Amino acid sequence: MIGLVGFDGDDTLWHSEGYYQVVHDEFERILGKYLDLADARVHDRLLATEKGNLRLFGYGAKGMTLSMIETAIELTGERIGAGDLHRLVELGKQVLAHPVELLPGIRAAVAAVAREFRIVLITKGDLFHQEAKVKRSGLADLFHRIEIVSEKDESTYRRLMAEFEIEASSFVMVGNSLRSDIAPVVQLGGWGVYMPYALTWAHERETEFAADDHRVETVEQASQIPGAISRIAARALDASRTPT
Amino acid sequence: MIGLVGFDGDDTLWHSEGYYQVVHDEFERILGKYLDLADARVHDRLLATEKGNLRLFGYGAKGMTLSMIETAIELTGERIGAGDLHRLVELGKQVLAHPVELLPGIRAAVAAVAREFRIVLITKGDLFHQEAKVKRSGLADLFHRIEIVSEKDESTYRRLMAEFEIEASSFVMVGNSLRSDIAPVVQLGGWGVYMPYALTWAHERETEFAADDHRVETVEQASQIPGAISRIAARALDASRTPT
Repeated sequence: MIGLVGFDGDDTLWHSEGYYQVVHDEFERILGKYLDLADARVHDRLLATEKGNLRLFGYGAKGMTLSMIETAIELTGERIGAGDLHRLVELGKQVLAHPVELLPGIRAAVAAVAREFRIVLITKGDLFHQEAKVKRSGLADLFHRIEIVSEKDESTYRRLMAEFEIEASSFVMVGNSLRSDIAPVVQLGGWGVYMPYALTWAHERETEFAADDHRVETVEQASQIPGAISRIAARALDASRTPT
Repeated sequence: MIGLVGFDGDDTLWHSEGYYQVVHDEFERILGKYLDLADARVHDRLLATEKGNLRLFGYGAKGMTLSMIETAIELTGERIGAGDLHRLVELGKQVLAHPVELLPGIRAAVAAVAREFRIVLITKGDLFHQEAKVKRSGLADLFHRIEIVSEKDESTYRRLMAEFEIEASSFVMVGNSLRSDIAPVVQLGGWGVYMPYALTWAHERETEFAADDHRVETVEQASQIPGAISRIAARALDASRTPT
């Protein structure tokens, strides 16, 4: 019996990664003034810095901006000018201020699910930026609760399920990241609706989890989410009736 | 009847502002290589940049670091070297990694309050950094709930009280900021225990609220918190018996 449906925010409800990729491209263009880009593997170095800093910065645009500044200074051997570093700060602000554009059909899909189930928004990253995006999305009123978390792993989902007073077997999570939205929920005994997004940050691609698990439905677009949840609900009902 | 006591984190449970002030002093020292400090009003300019950026960055060390970088570039007319800007990033990391040192007597005071009342921790700022500090504090287990919020104003406290299912008249907040911990709670009809800290960020000092309100007890040190809450509980009980 499904009792609660969770939705991810970035790249599930609204476009996000595209804004980061524009910034990464501009970052590379700026560094191209100082480096031979063919040799420098700028993206790899930035990702390595970002991952090294996660333990202190967590996720989000402010941490990314500081990691860009650090990477730029290191890769140029401190030759980069203050004007170009200022431009990196401006790029970070641009990400923080970007408009919230919903994915096609998402409003109708979320509203349809909300008519059948209690729904919550579970999003990861910078508290302040995520709150601003939720507000700008115009979807906040559909959700029973909005949870902004620093990491989406099994222990976070376990804590949230306890707060929501729901068993994992009655919980479905909808999202675009196998690593953050689907794998930990399924591993706790829950269900997933996986909706891949055209762009995925390299860090989120690091998972062994395969989407063909019987507890996961994969959909191509938002309009297919309500049907996928209905199929899962039927399967969950069957499972609850089967003696174990 | 008091049913819930909230505690602030930074500079109420553990030292915080001192780490920021060390960074601000080092920031000024670095800028002194480029500027005549007597003229530059470096602290005022940094505070103005921080306040201007609050709308995008929210509170916390990552936003402060980006504001330092921006201020340094602007005040030096882009003359500051990348090595010195790297040093500012390192200063930000230093704040994020600082050890959590409890205020004297705070553990015993919080434990004493927790024996009488349900207690929650309500702290403002960067989600990731605040979670790390709560963990390092060793106090997490004493709290019924831990709420990390992006702003401490009336609407935030109103939302939290609804989630906690408590009336404002049954809620006491303990903290070092009249602006963020005491004024909004008292304005909603609640109670406050104000424990000033030796250092207060200029932004937090901006309030018209006076601590001599009859709903506020002012204490000098942690050991006085349980007694202050008892006095408030007695007063709240009287108020609940007085016909209005």
